[in-house]
Amino acid sequence: MAVYTDVAAEDLSAFLADYALGNLLSLKGIAEGVENSNYFVMTETGPFILTLYEKRVNADDLPFFLGLMEHLAERGVPCPTPIRDRNGVALKTLNGRPATLISFLTGVSPRRVTVDQCSEVGRSLADLHLKGADFAIKRPNALSLEGWPALAHGCAKRADEVEPGLARELETEIAAMEQGWPGDLPAGVIHADLFCDNVFFDSGRLSGIIDFYFACNDLFAYDVAICLNAWCFESSKEFNVTKAKAMLHAYRQIRPFEPAEIEALPLLARGAALRFLLTRLYDWLHPVDGALVTPKDPREYLYRMRFHRGVESAVAYGLM
Amino acid sequence: MAVYTDVAAEDLSAFLADYALGNLLSLKGIAEGVENSNYFVMTETGPFILTLYEKRVNADDLPFFLGLMEHLAERGVPCPTPIRDRNGVALKTLNGRPATLISFLTGVSPRRVTVDQCSEVGRSLADLHLKGADFAIKRPNALSLEGWPALAHGCAKRADEVEPGLARELETEIAAMEQGWPGDLPAGVIHADLFCDNVFFDSGRLSGIIDFYFACNDLFAYDVAICLNAWCFESSKEFNVTKAKAMLHAYRQIRPFEPAEIEALPLLARGAALRFLLTRLYDWLHPVDGALVTPKDPREYLYRMRFHRGVESAVAYGLM
Repeated sequence: MAVYTDVAAEDLSAFLADYALGNLLSLKGIAEGVENSNYFVMTETGPFILTLYEKRVNADDLPFFLGLMEHLAERGVPCPTPIRDRNGVALKTLNGRPATLISFLTGVSPRRVTVDQCSEVGRSLADLHLKGADFAIKRPNALSLEGWPALAHGCAKRADEVEPGLARELETEIAAMEQGWPGDLPAGVIHADLFCDNVFFDSGRLSGIIDFYFACNDLFAYDVAICLNAWCFESSKEFNVTKAKAMLHAYRQIRPFEPAEIEALPLLARGAALRFLLTRLYDWLHPVDGALVTPKDPREYLYRMRFHRGVESAVAYGLM
Repeated sequence: MAVYTDVAAEDLSAFLADYALGNLLSLKGIAEGVENSNYFVMTETGPFILTLYEKRVNADDLPFFLGLMEHLAERGVPCPTPIRDRNGVALKTLNGRPATLISFLTGVSPRRVTVDQCSEVGRSLADLHLKGADFAIKRPNALSLEGWPALAHGCAKRADEVEPGLARELETEIAAMEQGWPGDLPAGVIHADLFCDNVFFDSGRLSGIIDFYFACNDLFAYDVAICLNAWCFESSKEFNVTKAKAMLHAYRQIRPFEPAEIEALPLLARGAALRFLLTRLYDWLHPVDGALVTPKDPREYLYRMRFHRGVESAVAYGLM
């Protein structure tokens, strides 16, 4: 939970004077989000979310993130739309931080994921991949293959505190990924962080996809691989193939997989688990003083990575 | 900021099945409140606040707090109303904690208090005192005169770390309070914690009074004295008599002061400052491991207490 930058009602009222949204009726800090400060804001014209971008977000990336949300929302993806002020500006400044008002989406994030929800996620992910295709701005994925050695290096000395032999295992895994990583699969804009917290459901239907602050250009199948990790395990180690099958089949109905994507899926899923293992391990070993968020146990993704390492083909994920 | 007890959407949906409020549309932890966990909840019938009562609240007191809010709201005080389920029950259980849904109030808390807001607070406080008069349940004030020696005792050994000589000063102050405290002033239900965070304004009018979890039976003038401390200082030491005058005059238009109340006001204001000094000092010296709230500097109220100690009559507060 996190509200890093405090916003006074008087300051927000002055900020809202730039918009055609009426007076401020309510302001409440939201105890969620790791990278940014988020507020629930109600004005005379309805509810909104106010986001203040904190230091972990590179301000140069904001035109990509906000532009992408607007692009996708215009095409019917249920994601927040940045609200433009009377001068057409969406990216503003509040309390010295880059800030934006975005539309409020109804729906709640699941804690106990169902098979039907996995289908919804698969369908919506494919839809997002198709609709992001003609978005003009590009952003490389800093947390893919090229970014992993530096993360592993930053953890190497103390990784074995978390699990004996882990430093060595990371090294071997990264080498395996570098050797086998596919370069020529279909690619475009991916969400890259589509965990349960970032998806809303309303009456069984997916009603919202939020938090585009890891979105980037990368392989579509890698985004699918991230979702396999995020949605289809019952615990650290127990893979639910029914959920995976539902997700992958719903995805391919909207955007069919190429044979090379299916073939690469176990390696990509292993790589996706490695990516979350590395960032969690880094945050675990380098806790930020005064952080409002408890680091998550990295081992969950170690076990998932090992699971995928033992997978020989996408048949294990329910794909034929 | 605080959300101590995590609530899954699935659990809240099951909880809401007892109510006639429609389906759950949104659930967001609110980063405010010290004693309890609060969530913003939207259902098909509108917005609500869900409060889960944590360990610092005595569950035996909940019928008083909830009954009082209902009593006051029925009489037009702009305070949250506990929502009753289909069986007429307002106090429920969720995730093993006492929990209640209350109505959502619009308005925002001020950070830079105006004179007009002080008038609004004075008027609303008097109105609350009159309308609480016929509330049947009683609750003694555990944080008044009788509770102070124990708090001071718990801080005595380390109080001088905060300010040299503080332990001795507390002892002297408590003795002075015990000697001079008035016993026969008009009394009834008081809010006892009406700080800016607990008051909402909408277009200049007071639109909400929240957080009744310190409410109790005590002297009305003591509640006024708490508000003098909470609303009428520009900084730790700088008293704004214009604000005090506005507050006290607005109050007396609704409920006239008795001469003995006016006479007692400097002592009560000094006692109110002592009360917040003691609890802040206690929290400062006994930080709770894993607490999500940063303790507030107790010295702010030490300086205010000293200010009131130098006040000879309520003329200094603008009262004639």
